[in-house]
Amino acid sequence: MAEFPLKHVYEAQQFDRNLLDTVFQVANDMKQDMADGGKRYGRALNNKIMASLFYEPSTRTRFSFEAAMLRLGGNIITTENAREFSSAAKGESLYDSTRIMNGYADIIVMRHHEAGSAEKAARVSTVPVINAGDGAGQHPTQALLDLFTIKDHFSEISNLKVAMVGDLKYGRTVRSLSYLLTKYSGIKIFYVSPPVCRMESDIKDYLVKEGVPWVEETDLDAVLPQVDCVYMTRIQRERFIVPGDYDEAAGKYILTIEKVRRMKPETIIMHPLPRLDEISQEVDDDPRAYYFEQARNGLYIRMALLYLLLTAG
Amino acid sequence: MAEFPLKHVYEAQQFDRNLLDTVFQVANDMKQDMADGGKRYGRALNNKIMASLFYEPSTRTRFSFEAAMLRLGGNIITTENAREFSSAAKGESLYDSTRIMNGYADIIVMRHHEAGSAEKAARVSTVPVINAGDGAGQHPTQALLDLFTIKDHFSEISNLKVAMVGDLKYGRTVRSLSYLLTKYSGIKIFYVSPPVCRMESDIKDYLVKEGVPWVEETDLDAVLPQVDCVYMTRIQRERFIVPGDYDEAAGKYILTIEKVRRMKPETIIMHPLPRLDEISQEVDDDPRAYYFEQARNGLYIRMALLYLLLTAG
Amino acid sequence: MAEFPLKHVYEAQQFDRNLLDTVFQVANDMKQDMADGGKRYGRALNNKIMASLFYEPSTRTRFSFEAAMLRLGGNIITTENAREFSSAAKGESLYDSTRIMNGYADIIVMRHHEAGSAEKAARVSTVPVINAGDGAGQHPTQALLDLFTIKDHFSEISNLKVAMVGDLKYGRTVRSLSYLLTKYSGIKIFYVSPPVCRMESDIKDYLVKEGVPWVEETDLDAVLPQVDCVYMTRIQRERFIVPGDYDEAAGKYILTIEKVRRMKPETIIMHPLPRLDEISQEVDDDPRAYYFEQARNGLYIRMALLYLLLTAG
Repeated sequence: MAEFPLKHVYEAQQFDRNLLDTVFQVANDMKQDMADGGKRYGRALNNKIMASLFYEPSTRTRFSFEAAMLRLGGNIITTENAREFSSAAKGESLYDSTRIMNGYADIIVMRHHEAGSAEKAARVSTVPVINAGDGAGQHPTQALLDLFTIKDHFSEISNLKVAMVGDLKYGRTVRSLSYLLTKYSGIKIFYVSPPVCRMESDIKDYLVKEGVPWVEETDLDAVLPQVDCVYMTRIQRERFIVPGDYDEAAGKYILTIEKVRRMKPETIIMHPLPRLDEISQEVDDDPRAYYFEQARNGLYIRMALLYLLLTAG
Repeated sequence: MAEFPLKHVYEAQQFDRNLLDTVFQVANDMKQDMADGGKRYGRALNNKIMASLFYEPSTRTRFSFEAAMLRLGGNIITTENAREFSSAAKGESLYDSTRIMNGYADIIVMRHHEAGSAEKAARVSTVPVINAGDGAGQHPTQALLDLFTIKDHFSEISNLKVAMVGDLKYGRTVRSLSYLLTKYSGIKIFYVSPPVCRMESDIKDYLVKEGVPWVEETDLDAVLPQVDCVYMTRIQRERFIVPGDYDEAAGKYILTIEKVRRMKPETIIMHPLPRLDEISQEVDDDPRAYYFEQARNGLYIRMALLYLLLTAG
Repeated sequence: MAEFPLKHVYEAQQFDRNLLDTVFQVANDMKQDMADGGKRYGRALNNKIMASLFYEPSTRTRFSFEAAMLRLGGNIITTENAREFSSAAKGESLYDSTRIMNGYADIIVMRHHEAGSAEKAARVSTVPVINAGDGAGQHPTQALLDLFTIKDHFSEISNLKVAMVGDLKYGRTVRSLSYLLTKYSGIKIFYVSPPVCRMESDIKDYLVKEGVPWVEETDLDAVLPQVDCVYMTRIQRERFIVPGDYDEAAGKYILTIEKVRRMKPETIIMHPLPRLDEISQEVDDDPRAYYFEQARNGLYIRMALLYLLLTAG
């Protein structure tokens, strides 16, 4: 059993540098154990039940958590229809649902359409709650797997130049990643976006406070040769209020194979997926394309969290 | 292996006093074994498959059954979309679906929108069928868990005064509970409801026939200090045909903390859940609030039934 | 571990006579082992995860695959909502979804609304893909279980007269079954359909090329006493463009108990299910009714394929 002080995981801000080191160490153990046929952890959570309580469908995230639980020998009960729980009552219902779930499951993985829901559930739950995304709020396991992917590739998360590209205003992942990168030294961040979807100033102010240099760019080509990591995001039409803004933003930051050839050989390309057309499919065969490994790393991070929350005393 | 004469569970009327004793004894064993880490029953249903065949979603009930099966070491196949089975054909289709399910699963848990469906399925099924609620019809595991909760708390179900509050005309649970209480001695029932949703006379006549005294009240406050068990139900707007009736009924029977303080210390408050506002959330912290334990007891009752139906010879 | 040259199963045309023999041999082993409590194969796929990736619901087929995986000791992650994967992007998305699934599951069972999807997924997948039906395209496990059912009953698939009845123009199963029957000797096929939904000429030409005699009939009564196998299909209203055509076709080929009595005693009646009214329910009790055994055989065929794809080297 590992030491782990958290009872629940609902936001990236719960993780300091020590906790990140613990999670990444266990995630790395999980990765090696999987390659070794699961000898060490393959039955670690036998007899445990995880409830996937998804108030909106997200097959990708759900499958990642469920595969993680199964790889540890655990069991699953699952719904993508949890909204029915709240059909009658409103805020109260999440409380009741959580209390009832406590009678059935040993751990709850919750996806919700309203920001703050996971933390609210955690507050009343007698079993651990993991936030699998709550609306415009947090998606902490995505933030952890992003950072773990950088560590997995570069061994150390330090002295790296990281570009974040696309919709930085509405993108949940780039905000969390920026926040977590402040835990490491020698980081420089390049925010590359159209003017209409720049990173918000709360994050930029926080970086200044924490001594992490950042620059804003609109020219992707100028940034690509300089950085170690290119974090692409999709630009979603529904985020734009003014009709013309979307057309201006989208398409400007498509990563083609020609652009990729201007990057350093050891640079990695990341993306939280799903992608629209912001990375050309021809890039997938380039060794710098790292987004499918990144998705796979989600499995190890989720195995690590399930293991830590369910066994740490 | 326990003795158990039933092949299927589709209605509360299948249970006589002996059968209730058997089910509650096994449910109690399950409860103790769970507290002991599942040493005795944790692998009892290894290699068995339960099919959750839900023609309408009911996440709460489905999770309860599925957790029960997993706690016994069994496996699950599950759908909330079973209505598709019946998209083409009508009554015939339930027959075909059941026959086909018999090829895949060792036991079927069925939720259906039409009363009588589970019994119809049971009639043709070669594997046990459990009714998880069929429309306005039966929901026998709810009735059993209600009664088990009373027994769990008071040790004996006898010489108790039980109030049932709210929508007694359309509420399935209060009808079944009334019926099952006739199996025990010294029971007195208080029906507390607005005039528009009184308990139907078939049940009241049956109580008279079985020698169980009952009274009807409209004043909740007068009843609360006298009873050992307060069974609250929600009043659903869609039950009322005349528009004004709902407004008259709803809100009249809200159990606030002030009302709870007038109850005896050992009285328990039950509710089949989900609740709307008929029990104030502040009541949840009172030791008399027993509805979440009641939901949890559903797990033990369902474990007992799955175990008995699948192992009794 | 058995020899099995296929990495994926996406169409009936992948199977030559040798492969069919292998699959049917293993399916038969599975059937016997199930009757024996799963001693030999009951834990064969422990630690393996199957992803049910259903882009449209098909509870019957999904349950059959999932029960098969569980009977082999494997684990399941499942969705009937996979279309959400493709909500944003289009053809590209199936590629991405497949790549991502490769990180979570050891084998993918895919149902898709577009013909050719399974083969497209197989082309990029690093884990085996099984086609569980792709639109108007292929449904190879149905074809295999149909043929296995004939072999299971007659021991040898040779010197048999097979009638296919109903909608032969739009029916996927009768096309695949016709194709696979050319692998065997002494077969004669009777196509019995209304003129508006005759078997297409590509299949009939292929039968001629392979030396399999066939005839077309419109009179079911004339055919029934002659054949060893009657393969019924349903006539779906939505297949007909001209309104009057459906009414002409439907109802003409209903297999009543009177018609069944004119069949030879050892003849078997098959149907891919679900049925509408093309076989009267009274026929179910006749020993020639074989469609529920046929559905059950789907379990053994799917167990065989899962086993062969996941263990053959």
